[in-house]
Amino acid sequence: MANQQYASCIEACNACASACDFCAASCLQEQDVKMMARCIALDMDCAQICRLAAGYMARGSEHAKAICRLCADICQTCADECGKHQMSHCQECAAACKRCAEECRRMAA
Amino acid sequence: MANQQYASCIEACNACASACDFCAASCLQEQDVKMMARCIALDMDCAQICRLAAGYMARGSEHAKAICRLCADICQTCADECGKHQMSHCQECAAACKRCAEECRRMAA
Amino acid sequence: MANQQYASCIEACNACASACDFCAASCLQEQDVKMMARCIALDMDCAQICRLAAGYMARGSEHAKAICRLCADICQTCADECGKHQMSHCQECAAACKRCAEECRRMAA
Amino acid sequence: MANQQYASCIEACNACASACDFCAASCLQEQDVKMMARCIALDMDCAQICRLAAGYMARGSEHAKAICRLCADICQTCADECGKHQMSHCQECAAACKRCAEECRRMAA
Repeated sequence: MANQQYASCIEACNACASACDFCAASCLQEQDVKMMARCIALDMDCAQICRLAAGYMARGSEHAKAICRLCADICQTCADECGKHQMSHCQECAAACKRCAEECRRMAA
Repeated sequence: MANQQYASCIEACNACASACDFCAASCLQEQDVKMMARCIALDMDCAQICRLAAGYMARGSEHAKAICRLCADICQTCADECGKHQMSHCQECAAACKRCAEECRRMAA
Repeated sequence: MANQQYASCIEACNACASACDFCAASCLQEQDVKMMARCIALDMDCAQICRLAAGYMARGSEHAKAICRLCADICQTCADECGKHQMSHCQECAAACKRCAEECRRMAA
Repeated sequence: MANQQYASCIEACNACASACDFCAASCLQEQDVKMMARCIALDMDCAQICRLAAGYMARGSEHAKAICRLCADICQTCADECGKHQMSHCQECAAACKRCAEECRRMAA
Protein backbone atom coordinates (compact mmCIF):
# COMPACT_ATOMS: atom_id res chain seq x y z
CA MET A 1 0.00 0.00 0.00
CA ALA A 2 2.79 2.37 0.95
CA ASN A 3 5.90 3.06 -1.08
CA GLN A 4 7.21 -0.41 -1.92
CA GLN A 5 10.88 0.57 -1.74
CA TYR A 6 10.31 1.44 1.90
CA ALA A 7 8.09 -1.51 2.86
CA SER A 8 10.54 -3.50 4.97
CA CYS A 9 11.88 -0.42 6.73
CA ILE A 10 8.37 0.85 7.53
CA GLU A 11 7.53 -2.59 8.91
CA ALA A 12 10.67 -2.55 11.09
CA CYS A 13 9.82 0.96 12.34
CA ASN A 14 6.29 -0.08 13.27
CA ALA A 15 7.51 -3.22 15.05
CA CYS A 16 10.15 -1.21 16.90
CA ALA A 17 7.66 1.47 17.97
CA SER A 18 5.32 -1.17 19.38
CA ALA A 19 8.16 -2.96 21.17
CA CYS A 20 9.40 0.31 22.69
CA ASP A 21 5.95 1.38 23.86
CA PHE A 22 5.31 -2.06 25.34
CA CYS A 23 8.74 -2.05 27.00
CA ALA A 24 8.17 1.40 28.52
CA ALA A 25 4.82 0.37 29.98
CA SER A 26 6.27 -2.93 31.23
CA CYS A 27 9.28 -1.20 32.82
CA LEU A 28 6.82 0.99 34.76
CA GLN A 29 5.38 -2.21 36.29
CA GLU A 30 8.75 -3.60 37.40
CA GLN A 31 9.71 -3.77 41.07
CA ASP A 32 12.77 -1.59 40.61
CA VAL A 33 11.47 1.12 38.27
CA LYS A 34 14.33 3.43 39.15
CA MET A 35 16.82 1.11 37.48
CA MET A 36 14.72 1.33 34.30
CA ALA A 37 14.53 5.13 34.11
CA ARG A 38 16.89 5.59 31.15
CA CYS A 39 15.33 2.60 29.38
CA ILE A 40 11.88 4.19 29.68
CA ALA A 41 13.14 7.57 28.47
CA LEU A 42 14.85 6.02 25.45
CA ASP A 43 11.80 3.87 24.69
CA MET A 44 9.72 7.06 24.45
CA ASP A 45 12.22 8.75 22.13
CA CYS A 46 12.55 5.66 19.98
CA ALA A 47 8.83 4.89 19.62
CA GLN A 48 8.15 8.46 18.53
CA ILE A 49 10.92 8.80 15.93
CA CYS A 50 10.06 5.34 14.50
CA ARG A 51 6.44 6.35 13.91
CA LEU A 52 7.58 9.66 12.42
CA ALA A 53 9.98 7.82 10.10
CA ALA A 54 7.23 5.41 9.01
CA GLY A 55 5.08 8.36 7.99
CA TYR A 56 7.86 10.15 6.08
CA MET A 57 8.63 6.96 4.17
CA ALA A 58 4.97 6.22 3.42
CA ARG A 59 4.67 9.72 1.94
CA GLY A 60 7.90 9.33 -0.01
CA SER A 61 9.17 12.50 1.67
CA GLU A 62 12.31 14.18 0.38
CA HIS A 63 13.51 14.08 3.99
CA ALA A 64 12.91 10.35 4.51
CA LYS A 65 16.60 9.44 4.30
CA ALA A 66 17.64 12.09 6.81
CA ILE A 67 14.97 10.95 9.25
CA CYS A 68 16.04 7.32 8.84
CA ARG A 69 19.67 8.25 9.54
CA LEU A 70 18.71 9.85 12.85
CA CYS A 71 16.20 7.09 13.62
CA ALA A 72 19.00 4.53 13.23
CA ASP A 73 21.09 6.33 15.87
CA ILE A 74 18.24 6.54 18.36
CA CYS A 75 17.27 2.89 17.77
CA GLN A 76 20.87 1.83 18.33
CA THR A 77 21.10 3.75 21.63
CA CYS A 78 17.82 2.21 22.79
CA ALA A 79 18.97 -1.27 21.72
CA ASP A 80 22.17 -0.87 23.74
CA GLU A 81 20.30 0.22 26.88
CA CYS A 82 17.53 -2.38 26.63
CA GLY A 83 20.12 -5.07 25.96
CA LYS A 84 21.51 -4.54 29.48
CA HIS A 85 18.32 -5.75 31.13
CA GLN A 86 17.23 -9.39 31.32
CA MET A 87 13.45 -8.98 31.26
CA SER A 88 11.89 -10.38 28.09
CA HIS A 89 10.25 -7.03 27.23
CA CYS A 90 13.72 -5.45 27.23
CA GLN A 91 15.39 -8.25 25.30
CA GLU A 92 12.63 -8.26 22.68
CA CYS A 93 12.76 -4.48 22.47
CA ALA A 94 16.54 -4.57 22.01
CA ALA A 95 16.12 -7.02 19.12
CA ALA A 96 13.42 -4.90 17.46
CA CYS A 97 15.52 -1.75 17.88
CA LYS A 98 18.59 -3.42 16.44
CA ARG A 99 16.71 -4.67 13.39
CA CYS A 100 15.16 -1.24 12.87
CA ALA A 101 18.56 0.45 13.16
CA GLU A 102 19.86 -1.84 10.41
CA GLU A 103 16.88 -1.22 8.14
CA CYS A 104 17.12 2.54 8.69
CA ARG A 105 20.86 2.58 7.99
CA ARG A 106 20.28 0.68 4.76
CA MET A 107 17.53 3.17 3.83
CA ALA A 108 19.68 6.19 4.63
CA ALA A 109 22.67 4.94 2.65
CA MET B 1 6.12 -7.91 21.22
CA ALA B 2 3.31 -5.50 22.06
CA ASN B 3 0.20 -6.33 24.00
CA GLN B 4 -1.07 -9.53 22.36
CA GLN B 5 -4.75 -8.69 22.84
CA TYR B 6 -4.17 -5.65 20.66
CA ALA B 7 -1.92 -7.23 18.03
CA SER B 8 -4.36 -7.36 15.12
CA CYS B 9 -5.74 -3.89 15.81
CA ILE B 10 -2.24 -2.39 16.03
CA GLU B 11 -1.38 -4.07 12.75
CA ALA B 12 -4.52 -2.64 11.12
CA CYS B 13 -3.71 0.83 12.48
CA ASN B 14 -0.17 0.69 11.11
CA ALA B 15 -1.37 -0.52 7.70
CA CYS B 16 -4.04 2.18 7.62
CA ALA B 17 -1.57 4.93 8.57
CA SER B 18 0.79 3.88 5.78
CA ALA B 19 -2.04 3.68 3.26
CA CYS B 20 -3.32 7.14 4.25
CA ASP B 21 0.12 8.74 4.07
CA PHE B 22 0.79 7.11 0.70
CA CYS B 23 -2.66 8.18 -0.55
CA ALA B 24 -2.11 11.80 0.56
CA ALA B 25 1.25 12.00 -1.21
CA SER B 26 -0.18 10.31 -4.32
CA CYS B 27 -3.21 12.64 -4.39
CA LEU B 28 -0.78 15.59 -4.43
CA GLN B 29 0.68 14.18 -7.66
CA GLU B 30 -2.69 13.83 -9.43
CA GLN B 31 -3.65 16.09 -12.33
CA ASP B 32 -6.73 17.41 -10.55
CA VAL B 33 -5.45 17.94 -7.00
CA LYS B 34 -8.33 20.24 -6.15
CA MET B 35 -10.79 17.36 -6.42
CA MET B 36 -8.69 15.47 -3.87
CA ALA B 37 -8.52 18.22 -1.23
CA ARG B 38 -10.87 16.61 1.30
CA CYS B 39 -9.29 13.21 0.68
CA ILE B 40 -5.84 14.63 1.51
CA ALA B 41 -7.12 16.38 4.64
CA LEU B 42 -8.81 13.21 5.89
CA ASP B 43 -5.74 11.11 5.06
CA MET B 44 -3.68 13.39 7.34
CA ASP B 45 -6.20 13.12 10.18
CA CYS B 46 -6.50 9.37 9.79
CA ALA B 47 -2.77 8.58 9.57
CA GLN B 48 -2.11 10.57 12.74
CA ILE B 49 -4.88 9.09 14.90
CA CYS B 50 -4.00 5.57 13.72
CA ARG B 51 -0.37 5.96 14.85
CA LEU B 52 -1.54 7.47 18.14
CA ALA B 53 -3.91 4.54 18.68
CA ALA B 54 -1.14 2.02 17.92
CA GLY B 55 0.98 3.63 20.65
CA TYR B 56 -1.80 3.69 23.23
CA MET B 57 -2.55 0.03 22.59
CA ALA B 58 1.12 -1.00 22.69
CA ARG B 59 1.40 0.68 26.11
CA GLY B 60 -1.83 -0.92 27.31
CA SER B 61 -3.11 2.57 28.10
CA GLU B 62 -6.25 2.96 30.20
CA HIS B 63 -7.48 5.25 27.38
CA ALA B 64 -6.85 2.79 24.55
CA LYS B 65 -10.52 1.93 24.09
CA ALA B 66 -11.60 5.56 23.95
CA ILE B 67 -8.93 6.32 21.34
CA CYS B 68 -9.97 3.30 19.28
CA ARG B 69 -13.61 4.43 19.36
CA LEU B 70 -12.67 7.83 17.90
CA CYS B 71 -10.15 6.26 15.53
CA ALA B 72 -12.91 4.06 14.12
CA ASP B 73 -15.03 7.12 13.31
CA ILE B 74 -12.19 8.93 11.58
CA CYS B 75 -11.19 5.81 9.62
CA GLN B 76 -14.79 5.34 8.49
CA THR B 77 -15.04 8.95 7.26
CA CYS B 78 -11.77 8.57 5.41
CA ALA B 79 -12.86 5.23 3.91
CA ASP B 80 -16.07 6.83 2.64
CA GLU B 81 -14.24 9.72 0.99
CA CYS B 82 -11.44 7.62 -0.51
CA GLY B 83 -14.00 5.12 -1.78
CA LYS B 84 -15.42 7.81 -4.09
CA HIS B 85 -12.22 8.02 -6.13
CA GLN B 86 -11.11 5.41 -8.66
CA MET B 87 -7.33 5.70 -8.34
CA SER B 88 -5.74 2.58 -6.86
CA HIS B 89 -4.14 4.55 -3.99
CA CYS B 90 -7.61 5.73 -2.97
CA GLN B 91 -9.26 2.34 -3.36
CA GLU B 92 -6.49 0.63 -1.38
CA CYS B 93 -6.65 3.34 1.26
CA ALA B 94 -10.42 2.94 1.53
CA ALA B 95 -9.97 -0.80 2.11
CA ALA B 96 -7.28 -0.26 4.77
CA CYS B 97 -9.41 2.39 6.52
CA LYS B 98 -12.47 0.15 6.49
CA ARG B 99 -10.57 -2.78 7.97
CA CYS B 100 -9.03 -0.51 10.62
CA ALA B 101 -12.45 0.93 11.50
CA GLU B 102 -13.73 -2.61 12.07
CA GLU B 103 -10.73 -3.61 14.21
CA CYS B 104 -11.02 -0.41 16.26
CA ARG B 105 -14.75 -0.86 16.79
CA ARG B 106 -14.13 -4.42 17.99
CA MET B 107 -11.42 -3.13 20.33
CA ALA B 108 -13.58 -0.34 21.72
CA ALA B 109 -16.55 -2.62 22.39
CA MET C 1 -0.96 32.13 12.21
CA ALA C 2 -3.20 29.16 12.89
CA ASN C 3 -6.98 29.21 12.94
CA GLN C 4 -7.82 32.17 15.18
CA GLN C 5 -10.94 30.57 16.67
CA TYR C 6 -8.69 27.85 18.04
CA ALA C 7 -5.78 30.00 19.19
CA SER C 8 -6.27 29.81 22.95
CA CYS C 9 -7.06 26.08 22.88
CA ILE C 10 -3.99 25.32 20.75
CA GLU C 11 -1.90 27.34 23.17
CA ALA C 12 -3.33 25.40 26.13
CA CYS C 13 -2.66 22.09 24.35
CA ASN C 14 0.95 23.03 23.65
CA ALA C 15 1.51 24.17 27.23
CA CYS C 16 -0.09 20.99 28.56
CA ALA C 17 2.01 18.77 26.28
CA SER C 18 5.22 20.44 27.46
CA ALA C 19 4.18 20.21 31.11
CA CYS C 20 3.31 16.50 30.74
CA ASP C 21 6.57 15.66 28.98
CA PHE C 22 8.56 17.58 31.58
CA CYS C 23 6.61 15.90 34.39
CA ALA C 24 7.21 12.42 32.94
CA ALA C 25 10.96 13.02 32.66
CA SER C 26 11.07 14.55 36.16
CA CYS C 27 9.10 11.66 37.67
CA LEU C 28 11.71 9.29 36.24
CA GLN C 29 14.34 11.15 38.29
CA GLU C 30 12.43 10.91 41.57
CA GLN C 31 13.62 8.66 44.41
CA ASP C 32 10.42 6.65 44.47
CA VAL C 33 9.70 6.17 40.74
CA LYS C 34 7.35 3.29 41.41
CA MET C 35 4.87 5.62 43.11
CA MET C 36 4.89 7.76 39.95
CA ALA C 37 4.20 4.94 37.46
CA ARG C 38 0.58 5.88 36.66
CA CYS C 39 1.52 9.56 36.55
CA ILE C 40 4.22 8.83 33.94
CA ALA C 41 1.87 6.67 31.87
CA LEU C 42 -0.85 9.34 31.89
CA ASP C 43 1.69 12.07 31.08
CA MET C 44 2.65 10.14 27.93
CA ASP C 45 -0.98 9.70 26.86
CA CYS C 46 -1.78 13.33 27.59
CA ALA C 47 1.24 14.89 25.84
CA GLN C 48 0.51 12.89 22.70
CA ILE C 49 -3.21 13.63 22.41
CA CYS C 50 -2.59 17.33 23.16
CA ARG C 51 -0.12 17.62 20.27
CA LEU C 52 -2.50 15.70 18.01
CA ALA C 53 -5.34 18.05 18.98
CA ALA C 54 -3.20 21.12 18.31
CA GLY C 55 -2.53 19.85 14.78
CA TYR C 56 -6.19 19.05 14.05
CA MET C 57 -7.21 22.51 15.21
CA ALA C 58 -4.46 24.25 13.25
CA ARG C 59 -5.68 22.47 10.11
CA GLY C 60 -9.30 23.31 10.89
CA SER C 61 -10.06 19.59 10.69
CA GLU C 62 -13.68 18.43 10.56
CA HIS C 63 -12.74 16.11 13.45
CA ALA C 64 -11.23 18.82 15.66
CA LYS C 65 -14.19 18.93 18.04
CA ALA C 66 -14.25 15.16 18.52
CA ILE C 67 -10.52 15.14 19.25
CA CYS C 68 -10.91 17.98 21.74
CA ARG C 69 -13.71 16.13 23.53
CA LEU C 70 -11.46 13.10 24.07
CA CYS C 71 -8.46 15.27 24.83
CA ALA C 72 -10.45 16.96 27.62
CA ASP C 73 -11.14 13.58 29.25
CA ILE C 74 -7.51 12.50 29.10
CA CYS C 75 -6.29 15.86 30.42
CA GLN C 76 -8.75 15.65 33.30
CA THR C 77 -7.57 12.14 34.26
CA CYS C 78 -3.97 13.29 34.14
CA ALA C 79 -4.77 16.42 36.17
CA ASP C 80 -6.42 14.29 38.85
CA GLU C 81 -3.43 11.92 39.10
CA CYS C 82 -0.76 14.65 39.03
CA GLY C 83 -2.72 16.64 41.60
CA LYS C 84 -2.13 13.85 44.16
CA HIS C 85 1.63 14.43 44.18
CA GLN C 86 3.34 17.36 45.87
CA MET C 87 6.35 17.85 43.60
CA SER C 88 6.23 21.12 41.68
CA HIS C 89 6.46 19.35 38.30
CA CYS C 90 3.30 17.42 39.20
CA GLN C 91 1.44 20.43 40.59
CA GLU C 92 2.34 22.54 37.55
CA CYS C 93 1.37 19.71 35.24
CA ALA C 94 -1.97 19.31 37.03
CA ALA C 95 -2.67 23.01 36.52
CA ALA C 96 -1.75 22.89 32.82
CA CYS C 97 -3.88 19.76 32.31
CA LYS C 98 -6.85 21.33 34.08
CA ARG C 99 -6.67 24.47 31.98
CA CYS C 100 -6.34 22.43 28.81
CA ALA C 101 -9.32 20.26 29.78
CA GLU C 102 -11.40 23.43 30.19
CA GLU C 103 -10.28 24.88 26.85
CA CYS C 104 -10.93 21.59 25.08
CA ARG C 105 -14.39 21.22 26.63
CA ARG C 106 -15.25 24.76 25.49
CA MET C 107 -13.97 23.93 22.00
CA ALA C 108 -15.92 20.65 21.81
CA ALA C 109 -19.19 22.23 22.95
CA MET D 1 6.84 24.39 33.07
CA ALA D 2 9.11 22.65 30.59
CA ASN D 3 12.89 22.72 30.63
CA GLN D 4 13.70 26.44 30.86
CA GLN D 5 16.82 26.22 28.69
CA TYR D 6 14.59 25.04 25.86
CA ALA D 7 11.66 27.39 26.40
CA SER D 8 12.15 29.71 23.43
CA CYS D 9 12.96 26.85 21.05
CA ILE D 10 9.91 24.88 22.16
CA GLU D 11 7.78 27.97 21.63
CA ALA D 12 9.22 28.44 18.13
CA CYS D 13 8.59 24.76 17.31
CA ASN D 14 4.97 24.99 18.45
CA ALA D 15 4.39 28.20 16.48
CA CYS D 16 6.02 26.67 13.40
CA ALA D 17 3.94 23.48 13.66
CA SER D 18 0.72 25.50 13.85
CA ALA D 19 1.76 27.72 10.94
CA CYS D 20 2.64 24.68 8.80
CA ASP D 21 -0.61 22.86 9.57
CA PHE D 22 -2.62 26.01 8.86
CA CYS D 23 -0.67 26.60 5.64
CA ALA D 24 -1.22 23.01 4.45
CA ALA D 25 -4.97 23.25 5.05
CA SER D 26 -5.11 26.70 3.41
CA CYS D 27 -3.12 25.52 0.37
CA LEU D 28 -5.73 22.76 -0.10
CA GLN D 29 -8.37 25.50 -0.43
CA GLU D 30 -6.47 27.50 -3.07
CA GLN D 31 -7.66 27.65 -6.69
CA ASP D 32 -4.43 26.18 -8.03
CA VAL D 33 -3.72 23.39 -5.54
CA LYS D 34 -1.34 21.66 -7.94
CA MET D 35 1.11 24.56 -7.69
CA MET D 36 1.10 24.10 -3.90
CA ALA D 37 1.83 20.35 -3.86
CA ARG D 38 5.43 20.55 -2.64
CA CYS D 39 4.47 23.26 -0.13
CA ILE D 40 1.78 20.99 1.35
CA ALA D 41 4.16 18.01 1.51
CA LEU D 42 6.85 20.06 3.25
CA ASP D 43 4.29 21.58 5.63
CA MET D 44 3.36 18.05 6.75
CA ASP D 45 6.99 17.05 7.28
CA CYS D 46 7.76 20.27 9.12
CA ALA D 47 4.74 20.28 11.43
CA GLN D 48 5.49 16.72 12.52
CA ILE D 49 9.20 17.12 13.23
CA CYS D 50 8.54 20.39 15.09
CA ARG D 51 6.08 18.70 17.45
CA LEU D 52 8.49 15.80 17.91
CA ALA D 53 11.31 18.22 18.73
CA ALA D 54 9.14 20.09 21.25
CA GLY D 55 8.51 16.83 23.07
CA TYR D 56 12.16 15.76 23.10
CA MET D 57 13.16 19.15 24.51
CA ALA D 58 10.40 19.17 27.12
CA ARG D 59 11.64 15.76 28.32
CA GLY D 60 15.25 16.93 28.29
CA SER D 61 16.06 13.99 26.01
CA GLU D 62 19.67 13.06 25.35
CA HIS D 63 18.73 13.19 21.65
CA ALA D 64 17.21 16.69 21.76
CA LYS D 65 20.17 18.34 20.04
CA ALA D 66 20.25 15.81 17.22
CA ILE D 67 16.52 16.24 16.62
CA CYS D 68 16.88 20.03 16.62
CA ARG D 69 19.68 19.82 14.04
CA LEU D 70 17.47 17.87 11.65
CA CYS D 71 14.43 20.00 12.49
CA ALA D 72 16.41 23.11 11.50
CA ASP D 73 17.11 21.62 8.04
CA ILE D 74 13.50 20.67 7.44
CA CYS D 75 12.25 24.07 8.66
CA GLN D 76 14.70 25.81 6.33
CA THR D 77 13.54 23.78 3.31
CA CYS D 78 9.92 24.55 4.16
CA ALA D 79 10.70 28.25 4.66
CA ASP D 80 12.36 28.40 1.24
CA GLU D 81 9.39 26.76 -0.50
CA CYS D 82 6.71 28.75 1.34
CA GLY D 83 8.64 31.95 0.69
CA LYS D 84 8.06 31.53 -3.06
CA HIS D 85 4.29 31.94 -2.71
CA GLN D 86 2.54 35.25 -2.09
CA MET D 87 -0.46 34.08 -0.04
CA SER D 88 -0.35 35.31 3.53
CA HIS D 89 -0.55 31.77 4.95
CA CYS D 90 2.62 30.92 3.01
CA GLN D 91 4.43 34.11 3.92
CA GLU D 92 3.55 33.72 7.60
CA CYS D 93 4.55 30.07 7.50
CA ALA D 94 7.88 30.96 5.90
CA ALA D 95 8.55 33.44 8.71
CA ALA D 96 7.65 30.91 11.42
CA CYS D 97 9.80 28.24 9.76
CA LYS D 98 12.75 30.60 9.46
CA ARG D 99 12.55 31.61 13.10
CA CYS D 100 12.25 27.97 14.17
CA ALA D 101 15.24 27.00 12.02
CA GLU D 102 17.30 29.67 13.80
CA GLU D 103 16.18 28.58 17.26
CA CYS D 104 16.85 24.93 16.45
CA ARG D 105 20.31 25.71 15.06
CA ARG D 106 21.14 27.63 18.22
CA MET D 107 19.90 24.70 20.32
CA ALA D 108 21.86 22.13 18.33
CA ALA D 109 25.11 24.12 18.51
